[in-house]
Amino acid sequence: MKIFMFLFFILFNLSLPNQAMEDENIVRGWAAKGAKQPLELHTYKVGPIGSQEVEIAVDYCGLCHTDLSFINNEFGLSQYPLIPGHEVVGKIVAMGEQVPGLKIGQTVGVGCYADSCMYCHDCRAGNNNLCEKVALTVGHPGGFAEKMRSHWAWTIPLPETLDISKAGPLMCGGATVFAPLLEHVKPIHHVGVVGIGGLGHLALQFAKAFGCHVTAFTSNLSKTEELKGFGAHRVISNKNSDDILEAAKSLDFLLVTVSTSLDWETYLQTLKPNGRMHVVGGIPEPMEIPALSLLPGKKCVSSSPLATPTQIFEMLEFAARHGIAPQVEIFPMSKVNEGLKHLEEGKARYRVVLKSDFDFLKEEK
Amino acid sequence: MKIFMFLFFILFNLSLPNQAMEDENIVRGWAAKGAKQPLELHTYKVGPIGSQEVEIAVDYCGLCHTDLSFINNEFGLSQYPLIPGHEVVGKIVAMGEQVPGLKIGQTVGVGCYADSCMYCHDCRAGNNNLCEKVALTVGHPGGFAEKMRSHWAWTIPLPETLDISKAGPLMCGGATVFAPLLEHVKPIHHVGVVGIGGLGHLALQFAKAFGCHVTAFTSNLSKTEELKGFGAHRVISNKNSDDILEAAKSLDFLLVTVSTSLDWETYLQTLKPNGRMHVVGGIPEPMEIPALSLLPGKKCVSSSPLATPTQIFEMLEFAARHGIAPQVEIFPMSKVNEGLKHLEEGKARYRVVLKSDFDFLKEEK
Repeated sequence: MKIFMFLFFILFNLSLPNQAMEDENIVRGWAAKGAKQPLELHTYKVGPIGSQEVEIAVDYCGLCHTDLSFINNEFGLSQYPLIPGHEVVGKIVAMGEQVPGLKIGQTVGVGCYADSCMYCHDCRAGNNNLCEKVALTVGHPGGFAEKMRSHWAWTIPLPETLDISKAGPLMCGGATVFAPLLEHVKPIHHVGVVGIGGLGHLALQFAKAFGCHVTAFTSNLSKTEELKGFGAHRVISNKNSDDILEAAKSLDFLLVTVSTSLDWETYLQTLKPNGRMHVVGGIPEPMEIPALSLLPGKKCVSSSPLATPTQIFEMLEFAARHGIAPQVEIFPMSKVNEGLKHLEEGKARYRVVLKSDFDFLKEEK
Repeated sequence: MKIFMFLFFILFNLSLPNQAMEDENIVRGWAAKGAKQPLELHTYKVGPIGSQEVEIAVDYCGLCHTDLSFINNEFGLSQYPLIPGHEVVGKIVAMGEQVPGLKIGQTVGVGCYADSCMYCHDCRAGNNNLCEKVALTVGHPGGFAEKMRSHWAWTIPLPETLDISKAGPLMCGGATVFAPLLEHVKPIHHVGVVGIGGLGHLALQFAKAFGCHVTAFTSNLSKTEELKGFGAHRVISNKNSDDILEAAKSLDFLLVTVSTSLDWETYLQTLKPNGRMHVVGGIPEPMEIPALSLLPGKKCVSSSPLATPTQIFEMLEFAARHGIAPQVEIFPMSKVNEGLKHLEEGKARYRVVLKSDFDFLKEEK
């Protein structure tokens, strides 16, 4: 018996520092171990926290189409094992010694960028989203995990009135459509949105709250009443060019949220003079844009990545004030593969959010 | 004898009204009678002057590549006989009864638009260049003639200090490049110009006078010193993408003045974040623009037609103040076909201007 107690004592004492390391630097997350593989529970070291870093205990993480693209290595950038997730909401549990302004326990969100250099021209100008060294949250490692880390500048405090179960999709999808509306759209404008999914249904709400006239282009007219509920004054089928041209010469701003090639020339005809077509989807093929479709009416084609940190802050405040939120379907994070399948099959109405259930997993063990 | 005198009297009296009509409503000009035909001297009726119209005795008319395109019916819009010419400078010789502000004898210029509806939204907003009913000066009939007519709103008084023999090319080429610089460029910007011909050599001068850093892209590096004289700080060959990428990530604004397809993806790499590529050439093939070349750096591709009437006025005042003028080669208008050949062969340095010589033709007769 004594020998057992001795061994137990030794083992207990040996295990103490290991246990401490596991608590502080070992994280459990859901990882793709290769392209097109289902995610698996994965344990990884994250090392000591950086002086400018914040560590967040993840409460919720939205599921964006870009997560699927990274899991499937569509951009050729993925490194495995890869922890996806970049619409993160949670509470600060640790901070580096040089983090200003934030507090332990504070509820914050992180979008698709988690870090930038902070000293380049664009970072200094507040356009951290244009930094050459901007770091994607996906795989950073990302938010399909019990904890994740981000630079303080990209860790945005959430307004207290925001429903945190729905805030995740605002951090990427919301910020991505809000920034170009903020920069290019006036309340008098007529705004069109192509593709009413995760991004599009938020764009309808923002454009409506901006005071604009709003047109939704959708392949599924059965959603018409729902899209009107989000803010569309007019819903148009985008199945063929005759339908699209119902909106001919009527739009100041056309936001394209899909990631597939469109009949660009026809969509450019929906713009008024001085109109802008703004693309936020990662369309793989080059867009065929006739110069003479732009020239007489002084039109332009533009794009943008995620918003700047200050724009994300403004977007959250605006969303809270106007009651703008994504329509979400919540899956427990342990059912992440079911959530991904739901998204991949085009069934998400309109955004899947994963709710962290690592505590539950711990209890199950 | 009496019978002859009687007949003479009758004929003289009959000819009086005809002669008056010939003086007032018959104009001589140089016309294309069909696509790709040399221009011929042509006489045509212009009817009574409209109440809002101005009639200009043409002193000079610049020769623009678009004239060639219309002579050759490249846009499928040409109607023959066609009087080209849309960089017109001359003196007002007649005005309709409702023309405000202008005076008989005043020196004025007309660019590529001669008329617009004046009541649409864009005309009321001062953007007459975006009017759906805007009328091209080419074939209106145009400025390769002893006289031409235009709406008063498109008939712009010239500053007294401007050399009228060089003012024609400012009316179209100058106004076309000045307007986008005025709208999109700040003095702190780095500006690139692709194609240093009639438009490009004026763009270099304007960008320099705006206070910008100026890069010229040219296929002919033997012009380097000349282009530096126009305002280029840097001259780069555009023969291959390695050369073009000497300017990688260095430009805020890239003005494309050529009318041929380029390696768009490479040129987009010359832009800094937030950069704009602005195309003013009538490029026939669709431009292949990868969305992912625009997205991360928040870039845009835009285009524009001729400036608004007030921008043309501002451009002329700015050009006069800064001594900005095209480098011209002057041909007598009767040698218009030689001028066109010179332009077509790419020999114009940098703009051909036709000097009216109808008086000389009259004397020769």
